[in-house]
Amino acid sequence: MRLTKYFLPVAKEVPAEAKIASHRLMLRAGMIKQASAGIYSWLPLGFRVLKKIETIVEEEQVKAGHIPMLMPTIQPAELWKESGRYEDYGKEMLRIRDRQERDLLYGPTNEEQITDIFRAHISSYKELPKTLFHIQWKFRDEMRPRFGIMRGREFYMKDGYSFDIDKDSAIHSYNRHLVSYLKTYERLGLKAIPMRADTGPIGGDYSHEFLVLAETGESNVFYDRTVAELSLGAEDINYEDPESIQGIVNQFTKYYARTEETHDKKMFEDLNVDLRQAGKGIEVGQIFYFGTKYSKTMNARVNLPDGSKVPVEMGSHGIGVSRLVGAIIEANHDEKGIVWPLSVAPFKIGIVNVKQSDKETSDFCEKLYTAINNMGLEVLYDDREERAGIKFNTMDLIGVPWRITVGPRGVEVGKVELTSRKSSESVEYSLEQVLNRLQSLD
Amino acid sequence: MRLTKYFLPVAKEVPAEAKIASHRLMLRAGMIKQASAGIYSWLPLGFRVLKKIETIVEEEQVKAGHIPMLMPTIQPAELWKESGRYEDYGKEMLRIRDRQERDLLYGPTNEEQITDIFRAHISSYKELPKTLFHIQWKFRDEMRPRFGIMRGREFYMKDGYSFDIDKDSAIHSYNRHLVSYLKTYERLGLKAIPMRADTGPIGGDYSHEFLVLAETGESNVFYDRTVAELSLGAEDINYEDPESIQGIVNQFTKYYARTEETHDKKMFEDLNVDLRQAGKGIEVGQIFYFGTKYSKTMNARVNLPDGSKVPVEMGSHGIGVSRLVGAIIEANHDEKGIVWPLSVAPFKIGIVNVKQSDKETSDFCEKLYTAINNMGLEVLYDDREERAGIKFNTMDLIGVPWRITVGPRGVEVGKVELTSRKSSESVEYSLEQVLNRLQSLD
Repeated sequence: MRLTKYFLPVAKEVPAEAKIASHRLMLRAGMIKQASAGIYSWLPLGFRVLKKIETIVEEEQVKAGHIPMLMPTIQPAELWKESGRYEDYGKEMLRIRDRQERDLLYGPTNEEQITDIFRAHISSYKELPKTLFHIQWKFRDEMRPRFGIMRGREFYMKDGYSFDIDKDSAIHSYNRHLVSYLKTYERLGLKAIPMRADTGPIGGDYSHEFLVLAETGESNVFYDRTVAELSLGAEDINYEDPESIQGIVNQFTKYYARTEETHDKKMFEDLNVDLRQAGKGIEVGQIFYFGTKYSKTMNARVNLPDGSKVPVEMGSHGIGVSRLVGAIIEANHDEKGIVWPLSVAPFKIGIVNVKQSDKETSDFCEKLYTAINNMGLEVLYDDREERAGIKFNTMDLIGVPWRITVGPRGVEVGKVELTSRKSSESVEYSLEQVLNRLQSLD
Repeated sequence: MRLTKYFLPVAKEVPAEAKIASHRLMLRAGMIKQASAGIYSWLPLGFRVLKKIETIVEEEQVKAGHIPMLMPTIQPAELWKESGRYEDYGKEMLRIRDRQERDLLYGPTNEEQITDIFRAHISSYKELPKTLFHIQWKFRDEMRPRFGIMRGREFYMKDGYSFDIDKDSAIHSYNRHLVSYLKTYERLGLKAIPMRADTGPIGGDYSHEFLVLAETGESNVFYDRTVAELSLGAEDINYEDPESIQGIVNQFTKYYARTEETHDKKMFEDLNVDLRQAGKGIEVGQIFYFGTKYSKTMNARVNLPDGSKVPVEMGSHGIGVSRLVGAIIEANHDEKGIVWPLSVAPFKIGIVNVKQSDKETSDFCEKLYTAINNMGLEVLYDDREERAGIKFNTMDLIGVPWRITVGPRGVEVGKVELTSRKSSESVEYSLEQVLNRLQSLD
């Protein structure tokens, strides 16, 4: 992409109400524009990042054996009256009346709708287990939307729903989600810790929240530092093997890791003082096994081999896709701007032409730009008639992981400079060398 | 995908209100489920097709030089009051009031919102031309939603907005859209004819609708049969060359082709009788150059080189992505079910195991299934314990373009049968031969 053909409205000033780094940087980097309170347009650069995160989230769910589909944003009130949540949900639910005076709502979540689909089409134990998921816009009419897309009203979420015949199978579904979420966050370049979460009136041990450590987090977290050092790495995961999946879950959940809601001061203080960590975290996902809460009320039952009927065991599992954009920035930025992990970077490579008016330099840039495009790598070429300093600042601000600087003196001797956004280290290369180097970026 | 692990609720009976083929077949093939009037869930099979269409639509827009982004579904009423359309739009607009008593609406289209983004960030002729587009859910509160997703209330649409400095440039943007739409429909396996459309009170020649010929269409269309025989084929398109793009536009628009709204009986009857065609069509897209209608009212102006300011020239250009699913089925089905064009087929290949209980047959199927997956081809393996007839009917119904039949007698001599959904022709192959053949499907 040539910058002059793109739409990248970077800004120096941002509104005073942008209080956290991700909100400020997303506005400055021209990633979003507020449409109204808590509702944002995703400008081209922000949209690229959002799509990359969506793709990784989806791929990992598919690998775990979960089936993609799509439910609509607008739901009928009847379903929520049936489950009993229509009144309970309160003012966070955006309620709508259509021209026929029917009560609708903008879905804040989809337990009712997926249960309705399930009961219409599945009636036998033979068709279980099944996990269906979708990635769709949701709306929660927050009293105080804030922090940009981190606590917006219209937000993009992956929510998956598992259906199992019994508790053992349901726990395997729960575990598959826990592990696939760990894998997802690792691919996004994030360290997210699964923490025992409050299950509310339903009880049970089966809810975990995933928290990214960040000073700007809204949650107080307490954990054994060992858990923050674990990683799946390149480990091959067999989602069809309950025991090995349980093994991974045990490995990641055996250490103390809790949010304020479930914090047990006594247990925490029993830890060796060197291991005790308290801090702030951003919630980026939650998984939940809630058994027959909806299936009983909404009559979603399946036949057993003996002909009897039981309500299906359910769980719901969510990842905040739009919120992740903010969480990744909170965890990856410096005073100059964003530092994208390669996997979600809107462009992997930036070309800075330090003297646009110089024909030889521009010709060289064109050659380089064409070669990188031909390699199938995403590159942003800053071809504006601007000073080099402005171009460097833009690349730093928008967080392009690798910058290639092309100037008249280098071109004379056939050299360019490759600079890492993360380490700021630069290496001089010939055209051939730099193209070679680009084949194995990290 | 193994059918027993998938969620494919095919049905024999469908509701009596499903009056057209695409609505009936989408329900029968388990592609959609109605959530409420005119609002549908996309079950896994339907979702796969929707995503494939979306991808093709997006790719062709990017090739034309248009920039993807994403605007939210919920818009503030203020913008529409500013443009004057808030009252005009009438009851088709889904109006919402939030907990703070602010007036919102579910966007039926995005001219106001994109103009607001434009005026906030672009102020110089140097930044033009620009075309921004998004693919997002829209809502129109239709009085009588019908024909399934063909005339639904919540629908998925690509809408693009062009911004140009003057009329010449704006017409090139219009032409780029016309040509990129033709290319899109061809890739989708559709014959869509650009027809001169009514421009309403704005006047001018610059609106075309794209109509797919189908008996169940809601529009009456009149055209010179020559235009229905044109195609772009593999022609290389240079979107940056206004003259060659204008040449293609002329080639496709010089023949008579109009809907009822713009039909000129006299002109039509002047055509040679052999060329005259009247029929029904389904509208699957519309492009529009409307000049300064919104930019004047909403004060979206740009500086010229001499320092003066002019309102920007705009156009808007839409493709109904969810509606296309229905239109493709209307144009591609027979008495047995859907006949997907390869480009949008949810699975390109189906494996029918005619005797699931036979170990050798099932082993052979596993080998075949693994080999096809390893080739990166999308395959659905019907591994149910069902009679062969039921399996054949399912594959025919859901429209898988190529079916491989594996039975005990064939396996004994190492043979399978490859059958085309379109022609019903079958050819016997060895395992090696069939894998070879699959590398060049059409």
